[in-house]
Amino acid sequence: MANPQTTFHHTTFHGESTLSIRRNKISRVTLQTQLELLRKTGRYDCFELKWHSIYDDKSHWPVPPHQFWDSDLGKWIESACYFLMEEYDAEIDAAVRYMVKTMRTAQREDGYLNLHYIVVEPGKRWTNIRDMHEFYNAGHLIEAALAHYQYYKNTEFLDVMEKYVALMSKTFGPGKGQLRAYPGHPEIELSLLRLYKVTKNVDAYNLARFFLEERGNPTGQEGKHYYDWEMERRGESPYKRPNSYPMTQDYWYCQAHAPIKEQQTVEGHAVRSMYLLIAVADLIALDRDGAQPLRDASTWFSALTGLWDNMVDKKMYLTGGIGAVAQWEGFGIDYFLPQGTDEGGCYAETCASIGVMMLAERLLYVDLSARYADVMELCLYNNVMTAMSLDGKAFTYENQLASSLKMKSAREEWFECSCCPPNLTRLFGSLGGYMWHFGGQKQQAFVNVHLYTTAKLEFKVGGAPLSLEQKSNWPWEGNVMFQLSAPAGIETTIRLRIPGWAEGDFVLTPSCKTAKVEKGYLVLDPAYTAANPSFSLVVGGFKPRYIAPHPYTNQRTLTLARGPFVYCVEDYDNPWEKDHFRNVVLKEGSPVTEEERFFEKQGEPYVALRTVGWERSMKSWTSKPSGASPGTSTGEDSLGSQRELVFVPYYFRANRGGQGHMRVGLLKA
Amino acid sequence: MANPQTTFHHTTFHGESTLSIRRNKISRVTLQTQLELLRKTGRYDCFELKWHSIYDDKSHWPVPPHQFWDSDLGKWIESACYFLMEEYDAEIDAAVRYMVKTMRTAQREDGYLNLHYIVVEPGKRWTNIRDMHEFYNAGHLIEAALAHYQYYKNTEFLDVMEKYVALMSKTFGPGKGQLRAYPGHPEIELSLLRLYKVTKNVDAYNLARFFLEERGNPTGQEGKHYYDWEMERRGESPYKRPNSYPMTQDYWYCQAHAPIKEQQTVEGHAVRSMYLLIAVADLIALDRDGAQPLRDASTWFSALTGLWDNMVDKKMYLTGGIGAVAQWEGFGIDYFLPQGTDEGGCYAETCASIGVMMLAERLLYVDLSARYADVMELCLYNNVMTAMSLDGKAFTYENQLASSLKMKSAREEWFECSCCPPNLTRLFGSLGGYMWHFGGQKQQAFVNVHLYTTAKLEFKVGGAPLSLEQKSNWPWEGNVMFQLSAPAGIETTIRLRIPGWAEGDFVLTPSCKTAKVEKGYLVLDPAYTAANPSFSLVVGGFKPRYIAPHPYTNQRTLTLARGPFVYCVEDYDNPWEKDHFRNVVLKEGSPVTEEERFFEKQGEPYVALRTVGWERSMKSWTSKPSGASPGTSTGEDSLGSQRELVFVPYYFRANRGGQGHMRVGLLKA
Repeated sequence: MANPQTTFHHTTFHGESTLSIRRNKISRVTLQTQLELLRKTGRYDCFELKWHSIYDDKSHWPVPPHQFWDSDLGKWIESACYFLMEEYDAEIDAAVRYMVKTMRTAQREDGYLNLHYIVVEPGKRWTNIRDMHEFYNAGHLIEAALAHYQYYKNTEFLDVMEKYVALMSKTFGPGKGQLRAYPGHPEIELSLLRLYKVTKNVDAYNLARFFLEERGNPTGQEGKHYYDWEMERRGESPYKRPNSYPMTQDYWYCQAHAPIKEQQTVEGHAVRSMYLLIAVADLIALDRDGAQPLRDASTWFSALTGLWDNMVDKKMYLTGGIGAVAQWEGFGIDYFLPQGTDEGGCYAETCASIGVMMLAERLLYVDLSARYADVMELCLYNNVMTAMSLDGKAFTYENQLASSLKMKSAREEWFECSCCPPNLTRLFGSLGGYMWHFGGQKQQAFVNVHLYTTAKLEFKVGGAPLSLEQKSNWPWEGNVMFQLSAPAGIETTIRLRIPGWAEGDFVLTPSCKTAKVEKGYLVLDPAYTAANPSFSLVVGGFKPRYIAPHPYTNQRTLTLARGPFVYCVEDYDNPWEKDHFRNVVLKEGSPVTEEERFFEKQGEPYVALRTVGWERSMKSWTSKPSGASPGTSTGEDSLGSQRELVFVPYYFRANRGGQGHMRVGLLKA
Repeated sequence: MANPQTTFHHTTFHGESTLSIRRNKISRVTLQTQLELLRKTGRYDCFELKWHSIYDDKSHWPVPPHQFWDSDLGKWIESACYFLMEEYDAEIDAAVRYMVKTMRTAQREDGYLNLHYIVVEPGKRWTNIRDMHEFYNAGHLIEAALAHYQYYKNTEFLDVMEKYVALMSKTFGPGKGQLRAYPGHPEIELSLLRLYKVTKNVDAYNLARFFLEERGNPTGQEGKHYYDWEMERRGESPYKRPNSYPMTQDYWYCQAHAPIKEQQTVEGHAVRSMYLLIAVADLIALDRDGAQPLRDASTWFSALTGLWDNMVDKKMYLTGGIGAVAQWEGFGIDYFLPQGTDEGGCYAETCASIGVMMLAERLLYVDLSARYADVMELCLYNNVMTAMSLDGKAFTYENQLASSLKMKSAREEWFECSCCPPNLTRLFGSLGGYMWHFGGQKQQAFVNVHLYTTAKLEFKVGGAPLSLEQKSNWPWEGNVMFQLSAPAGIETTIRLRIPGWAEGDFVLTPSCKTAKVEKGYLVLDPAYTAANPSFSLVVGGFKPRYIAPHPYTNQRTLTLARGPFVYCVEDYDNPWEKDHFRNVVLKEGSPVTEEERFFEKQGEPYVALRTVGWERSMKSWTSKPSGASPGTSTGEDSLGSQRELVFVPYYFRANRGGQGHMRVGLLKA
């Protein structure tokens, strides 16, 4: 298996599409803007190892503000390398070279490399693995080094990281004298597995696997949970805990409350959870590929898919957002999915949905099923795409489904913990890798098409070039034209995702009697593809539809969707609204009209929707005297006055002005 | 002003009523049962100051299991003294005498008295006022001493507590060298004010007032918040915090995040909040009475009523329960009122609703309005009464509105932290004091009747006896007969509460043209009461009615109520139910029939209700494949099959067997 970060360059986005507009913006605006911010905030040259005044800030134990700087640089380098492969930019190139140079110099003799423990707390490395992000940072730097290696075709950065991995492999593991630790914030596991795939560094595989197998061991180190053991070594009380831990030893926060294979529900910090499970999926894939056999592979697989199901069925917002609770940036109990802060929740971090996409891509590799691809696409066009402004210069961290007095719908230039912005850029940089899985050997080739847009895939089968081009106005229209060009004598199977929301409404032209839908993929066999190198798929579901969260969420809301887009209302289009659309009611089945629009300022076409809504009348409540017994009223009154409502795709929010009032789910009449 | 604990003995419950059944059970069963438990658990003789093995348990910093033992004894003694005034019991009497004797002996030379800091951690007194319950325990012992003084008419116990108060007055206060502390768990404030009222001990008044005025001062001690200051003295990190503090320095947990007068919303631990506000109301009452003038009395009053309104309008369950969140046993954000653990909440502690009743009684004294009395009655008949089994031997701590797999509807004999059971007994012991406010001077007398039952009030006006008797089958029927006997020449005004749920439906016989309803009280002037010493009031609202929580709670449920009772469904009467009535739907307006029943085993008559409900059909959800995109479904299906539902009053739950499935709010169709 190869990951999107390795395979993306087989895809070119060769025509205008909603995705290519975004990718071009990132390549030409965002990368530069982020580089400026790296410079302005002190990150850019931090590996010169000089003192920065921010290092004195001890106000947020255990997390110093510069804790993630290594990873910010890593993710930016990674993004830069992806986009440099498409379009050269001398300033970006120079910046990457400079950063890598400083890291080479900063690396300690024995291979250790971490800004905080080299500059701020020398001598304390690996004393607080639960809270500090050494492994997380290392993981992102490994990913950056792999991207660097791929673009620059030299090992200047990769050597640094392999030396660091050698040190970690010596220090951590099940052997005598080794520490049985595992990262507080998973990430390195997936990057070690990626490193293994590229370099065949078995130490990297073994270390990742150890981290995954050891996690949650209640008696790992001297009969104790590792995090308890190291806490005692630091001389700390269990009651001293970061603010993200609601209670003492709540190790579910970082998925270390039980061995992974025994976990039944997704818990805790959503990004950590996703990064961890991505590595689990990689472990399974390496077993299936025969690269590294895995004992209990089927147990791992059923644990993984069980956690996926729990997440998607009970802990995911309609926008693909995950994480209902701000305190631990993560999952609440099943079906706890409040839309905004005034209902007690909604975090839906950008990085978390990027993690869902990464996990879905891995799962598609080991268990091809449209259920993963549907979620991947849902995240992409909604919770992920809403996280960057149309001008490519501002970002979100949290992606609530409803604004509130406390948190308006808005974006920011940067964050103290700025994981999301560069995560978005590297995702879009490697986006081609999420479009399809493909491969070929001997006389056989296959392409599993997960996402539709205008793009071209090119790869070689037995030395000869195969290409598959798709052209469409997706995600606005469902008509996709394909053109296959395969080497002579190669039997090509093409599988096309039929999204769940299309509800089986699709037309293949020319038609194919033998084509069956298997787990949501329409399978075109080699006979068909040979006879019809040009074919088209028309997917239905591009009429507006009403969707709703699970009844157990207690939401009883309706949301408009169209194709892969989830819609929202904003006061920009509905300027009469002053209370975040809290009291606006929809009726299922009210007719919806479409309006093709063009946002001149950013050159962005889109489809707006119009329907009628009602005011929620609460006269029987508002007429109740204050402070009188709650047991006297009889519920809501009938509907109040009617109004026209204009909806725009969720990713469009907070781009055109307005007061920041926004809502995805409106009350259901 | 006098408090219910002082005035209750003016009332006799002279006929059978739902309240008298409960009071008799407590007097004849509960007090003895609790005494046994005090003996069995080591509490009874703990002031012998011997070591108990439980003192070694350090598993719950900072709260050792015996932390509240002083108060458990205090509340039991208090209850015992109230019931001894009605009916002598030699064993109870002997136990009180023994406990008081041991406390006298245990008291330190300087007046200090606290089990933990005398036996377990000598030398550390008052070093952790935030978390340890020294003041709280002292407060309950003061209340016990007042009850003891009232019954035994000697100062053997009161002397102990006055000596302790003298020590505290010397140690804490605004003076030079004094500590500017205030209790982590409020309680002593109200008990000091009660002590002042009985003994005119001005030090007690001043100390209480200091505690109330100083609370939440961000710079009280050496420029620091007191709890920060003492934390630093203990050498503790702010990140070391009890499990009830979700985040560092979350002093809203104990209402110390801001000065009381500046607090806009009720926050944190619900019991602490109530006990604190009770003392605030007392402070205001003492000002109104002219006993102790209060600067800014109107600011105090508007802060207090603002907090009341916030609580009742936005943070109170239909049952009178408060506290949605288990972690801090307290309030969530506005309108966050999930019914059970599977929705992420519901604590509704018994003690907290007792606190609401105590606060309502104080507010009725300073601001006569049926809005307070309605809530007082709501709590009494629902969240409070449900907390004890009909046999008087088992209790609840939390009172959820819906059971769940994790927490069935059940009661227990006792708790490690057993604040609720003896709180209930002392409340019922002094219940007469909550029935009415009364008074008289010169030629004027008044009785403000808050609660209806069968009871007789007797007091003296100008040395002559006045009595008011009420007879009724309340809370089952609304017909109340009154008989006034007033001394000749005394002008008696009687005010009768018209509950909000009666919606103005009441009939006075003989009728009275001059009688007006003022803030929910029907005012009978002296001319009327002189002409009609026998009169009757018929209050409507005893037909079953549908009630609902505020729409912003996102509950969209319907609940049946009748008179002051809120009803629930239990699997005992509806044995087909297996999922806690999570998917049972009611339609507003469905006809409800009544059924008079008699629960033989406990000699308890009650009214059950019957109506029809529907199954919630979720086929479109259950047919969805697991782990597929949440944005594909369109909500609930139409209603499923119809069933008859039997409802019983909430206090009846978990008394007759069954599997512990119960729900108050059913889905609204």
